[in-house]
Amino acid sequence: MIKSRIAALRRLLKKQGLDAILVTLPANRRYLSGFSPDDGQWGESSGAIFVSQNAALLLTDFRYELTARSQAPYFETLIYHQGLATLMGMIAPELGINTLAYESEAMLDIWRQRLEENLPEVELKPTLGLASKLRVMKNSAEIKALTASLALMEKVLDDTLAGDIVGKSEREVALSIARAVEDAGAEGVSFPPLVASGPNGAEPHAESGSRIIKRGDPVVFDVGAKLGGYCSDISRTVVAGGLEAADERFAQIYGLTRKAQLKAMAEIMPGMLGEEADAIAREVIEEGGFGPRFGHSLGHGVGLATHEDPRVGPRSGDELMPGMVFTIEPGIYLPGWGGVRLEDMVLLTSQGCRRLGSLDRFYDLP
Amino acid sequence: MIKSRIAALRRLLKKQGLDAILVTLPANRRYLSGFSPDDGQWGESSGAIFVSQNAALLLTDFRYELTARSQAPYFETLIYHQGLATLMGMIAPELGINTLAYESEAMLDIWRQRLEENLPEVELKPTLGLASKLRVMKNSAEIKALTASLALMEKVLDDTLAGDIVGKSEREVALSIARAVEDAGAEGVSFPPLVASGPNGAEPHAESGSRIIKRGDPVVFDVGAKLGGYCSDISRTVVAGGLEAADERFAQIYGLTRKAQLKAMAEIMPGMLGEEADAIAREVIEEGGFGPRFGHSLGHGVGLATHEDPRVGPRSGDELMPGMVFTIEPGIYLPGWGGVRLEDMVLLTSQGCRRLGSLDRFYDLP
Repeated sequence: MIKSRIAALRRLLKKQGLDAILVTLPANRRYLSGFSPDDGQWGESSGAIFVSQNAALLLTDFRYELTARSQAPYFETLIYHQGLATLMGMIAPELGINTLAYESEAMLDIWRQRLEENLPEVELKPTLGLASKLRVMKNSAEIKALTASLALMEKVLDDTLAGDIVGKSEREVALSIARAVEDAGAEGVSFPPLVASGPNGAEPHAESGSRIIKRGDPVVFDVGAKLGGYCSDISRTVVAGGLEAADERFAQIYGLTRKAQLKAMAEIMPGMLGEEADAIAREVIEEGGFGPRFGHSLGHGVGLATHEDPRVGPRSGDELMPGMVFTIEPGIYLPGWGGVRLEDMVLLTSQGCRRLGSLDRFYDLP
Repeated sequence: MIKSRIAALRRLLKKQGLDAILVTLPANRRYLSGFSPDDGQWGESSGAIFVSQNAALLLTDFRYELTARSQAPYFETLIYHQGLATLMGMIAPELGINTLAYESEAMLDIWRQRLEENLPEVELKPTLGLASKLRVMKNSAEIKALTASLALMEKVLDDTLAGDIVGKSEREVALSIARAVEDAGAEGVSFPPLVASGPNGAEPHAESGSRIIKRGDPVVFDVGAKLGGYCSDISRTVVAGGLEAADERFAQIYGLTRKAQLKAMAEIMPGMLGEEADAIAREVIEEGGFGPRFGHSLGHGVGLATHEDPRVGPRSGDELMPGMVFTIEPGIYLPGWGGVRLEDMVLLTSQGCRRLGSLDRFYDLP
């Protein structure tokens, strides 16, 4: 599998007239080599892979030496002691390259400066999404892995929603979700669980905090697991204490969001652009009078990263193709009141969208 | 406090002939404005702050609008809908700037390209550590916050080490540490807890895995908490099942590491360079014959980020000054056998190093 991925990357490089590429995006490193460590904080890196027509190198520091050698046997592991750029400068003559592509989306300005200093004879070429492009179509093993990651997450969310959340803090509920995900055998969460109650739900990515969930609150859950490297991502919105505790506004906001989601799932077809797919849901919400309150994209690809291509949002020219996996997650957010977001992961097939999960937990509203 | 930090930044800008700076490093954003959200994955950002002599702006997207307005009242919050660079291009004429500094260590190549496109009249100036420099000397409130974060972490580690770890998996122990940190009221861990047993201890930053801890294993613990935004970072190495279960090599490796740590703590003084401080411990390990097996720096600053200035390692020209907080963490790693690392956080005073913590849990060896 690694071999055919490298071959595909080499074809891409050839086509674009590039001698080699330095891959620093963790999900791409992992996809192309098997090397799994994430980077640390800003400015830290667990390494880079270098691929030319003749070479496949994994460049890392001594902290990851054993991991690199065991996880990425197809690659030759080289250890740097004074940074990637210095090592690249030392081995450049042997590599025989005139142009070296790098990933603009995972290249710090300071790293690029150092590469320029150490590789004065090599032309550095920024690319955007070049290696990531290889990840966008999922094969059957990846679809299986994504389905398993989502199934694990749905089970935990289902259990959580079956319990009583009234009187608990958002943070308490979020922590218990993260722990259940770990206990179920996942590597962990793919992003910190979001539990946003009442007015906090108006910020689509608010942090889960100390607010105590009250009966009648709309509560947005946005959660994901990472299993075998593959991420899941799902949202549900519920009324704490049950639907009968909802205020008069809830049914309208929820119903509109759900209608937008169902319409998008039914109508998104291969060949559409991301912006056309987005428009299907957006029009429903606009017609309902809440267009400006749906402030984010309809969805995004999911795979080794939680957010990846394709982009499914306004101004996205990404063509949606069979084999892509992405979220469909319309939302409506009213400052002071709260929000509703409903998110599922779908696999696009030649017939349209197929849900990867099966968690129902939707309110059936007029 | 925010006001005096901004004033200090403005003096720095003036001194360097820069009209303004765009701050994208999360710890610097937080230090300068109070705005706490972290960034997501590569390519994602929760925002930037812009500081000129006349303006203090927080630029973010709609997900963080309410958080920004409540956490950063000193700043004017502006929301971008098509990215930071586009907004910067729109407001550039009003800002009246010719030169705009940015942080090379927290600036993606793609972001810089977009800023260049949208700010054709403005000269972009890379800086390294310019705003971070402000964070390097800790005031008394910060020292208190760091001490509290470390005390919480030490309590959890102490409880863990008081229990029996033989027969548990590394991952199980690491998870229980993370949960105890959360339960003790921290925001969470400042990095994933490392529990590396037996041969796994030979990789200083191995991930905690499925290996079952065996009696007699040397086990490296490297753990940290985040409390009130401030990070802690501490390491201890213990023999699973008690010192009497250790092999003959352990006493030698441990004793040498501890000697190096104690000597560095006793002898590091204000005015030394990072490389001089590092050399104190390194010489002990070199004289013991394990120089090449101490493959990382002696220490690093700790504050709003786990790793920050000063750098305390070979080739570090950072001058160590009273008011700095950093780790002292020598280690020796033997592939196939395992490792020993001992790490404490110290505050440098005019008298030398003062430990911020009090967890003993050291073996007293000849």
